[in-house]
Amino acid sequence: VSPTIGVFDSGFGGLTVLRELLRIIPGAHYVYLGDTARLPYGSKSRETVVRYALSSARFLEEHGAELLVTACNTATALALEDLQEALPIPVIGVVDPGTRAATRACGDAGNGERPGVLVLATQATVDSHAYARSCEAAGLLATEKACPLLVPLIEEGWGSEGSREEMCEVTSQVLRIYLREALESTSNARAVLLGCTHYPLLRSAIEQTLSELGHPIPVIDSAQATAEAVAEALAARNLVRDDVHDRCEFFATDSVAKFARLGTRFLGSPVENVQLIDLGG
Amino acid sequence: VSPTIGVFDSGFGGLTVLRELLRIIPGAHYVYLGDTARLPYGSKSRETVVRYALSSARFLEEHGAELLVTACNTATALALEDLQEALPIPVIGVVDPGTRAATRACGDAGNGERPGVLVLATQATVDSHAYARSCEAAGLLATEKACPLLVPLIEEGWGSEGSREEMCEVTSQVLRIYLREALESTSNARAVLLGCTHYPLLRSAIEQTLSELGHPIPVIDSAQATAEAVAEALAARNLVRDDVHDRCEFFATDSVAKFARLGTRFLGSPVENVQLIDLGG
Repeated sequence: VSPTIGVFDSGFGGLTVLRELLRIIPGAHYVYLGDTARLPYGSKSRETVVRYALSSARFLEEHGAELLVTACNTATALALEDLQEALPIPVIGVVDPGTRAATRACGDAGNGERPGVLVLATQATVDSHAYARSCEAAGLLATEKACPLLVPLIEEGWGSEGSREEMCEVTSQVLRIYLREALESTSNARAVLLGCTHYPLLRSAIEQTLSELGHPIPVIDSAQATAEAVAEALAARNLVRDDVHDRCEFFATDSVAKFARLGTRFLGSPVENVQLIDLGG
Repeated sequence: VSPTIGVFDSGFGGLTVLRELLRIIPGAHYVYLGDTARLPYGSKSRETVVRYALSSARFLEEHGAELLVTACNTATALALEDLQEALPIPVIGVVDPGTRAATRACGDAGNGERPGVLVLATQATVDSHAYARSCEAAGLLATEKACPLLVPLIEEGWGSEGSREEMCEVTSQVLRIYLREALESTSNARAVLLGCTHYPLLRSAIEQTLSELGHPIPVIDSAQATAEAVAEALAARNLVRDDVHDRCEFFATDSVAKFARLGTRFLGSPVENVQLIDLGG
């Protein structure tokens, strides 16, 4: 039988990671949990995020997950070690894979300096400095920038294709403010790393704003690199897959109708048969 | 001894109601709970909001509250009846007092038509149509408009005095989009009712945007009318107060430092000695 891979996020953003997992590791059994009753994690304290992440992770383990993907930057940044200690299965986060992707994109600065990377993330992820540490270990110099308004703008659909021009203009203006502030505090950024799994939905708007500001540097996310890390971990544990078809189960802690509706935008294909669960609280 | 009045909200907005309670009913003992670990309520389902509101309310009752103020429009709109059934103490919400304030502001349309009122609120409050029902009973015709981006903008401080001009401009642009859409769907609005306890912090920006759009109608909130309803309920139950000084206790379910920092802006005076509690989940 194919391995069961648990994937969790505070809400919908982790579906951008599931999308890459389905592409790179087809034929597995995926169980996805969006902890939508308690979202967002990104504005909350470490203690609260650890508590929420542990209960989400335990649900997936009890549901048969043989490997867990923390498809949420905030939960990875604040709780990865707690999860790895508490669970008997491998737990893979998105921060180190994101740094790996940034390393590829930055190349070598060539002058003995560490290449700079601009990390956009939630307030909680920035406050944890998880990316600064991960990048430092990889020989990169991270500048971390909190962008708290991007998640609500994305969830409202104000930055997506098809939304009205005046709404896209609000998103562009917010991006200009965040990116100008971030670029002022770093002189040598060679790439922008999306340190929140929501942000890939604004990739083209971010690329356009960078161009307008005279810094047309590549924009990368951790989804593909995370899926590659999962594939390596599966191979190392001889968890082979022999199914032809993927199988996805979806769970949410709040409205399943909203999860299906919003989730489809993040996954890029229909999210169906979402089941409601109660993690207490 | 003075009565103990419990006040709860998903976060900070309820402090705008506490501010009016302190003005209109000085010398009482207030216990405020901000359920910050699970905020926001306004984007979540009725089932989840009822569950969260019940656990918040029970905490305050166990903490000695003799009267409970649901200082949150979403919790009032979705859970007031559940709270009134579950608790042995009086529970006062903010929706009916807000409608009462709107009635005063609207006066009589004079032509036999019901005066119109434009209600700005969270998605969950709008979906509940609690204001439409409350206004209908009061002889008003409500147009309900969801404004999901206002709470994050307020929590980021992008609309407050002292924030940078380009940030205020983002808030103004968002308000123009929401208010223009709302005014297009109603021809006879005689007042704007702030149906979310966060929104009073944007009152002047909302007034300015209404003027720019050619609709300089009054902007009202439910805080004062709610405090008046509480004063009436106390008098009806002979819960008299004999202390000279107010006493306030603050509880939060997430970071107490953040609660003290953000809360001070909403209360208009320092929020101190916040205690962390765990409501489970």
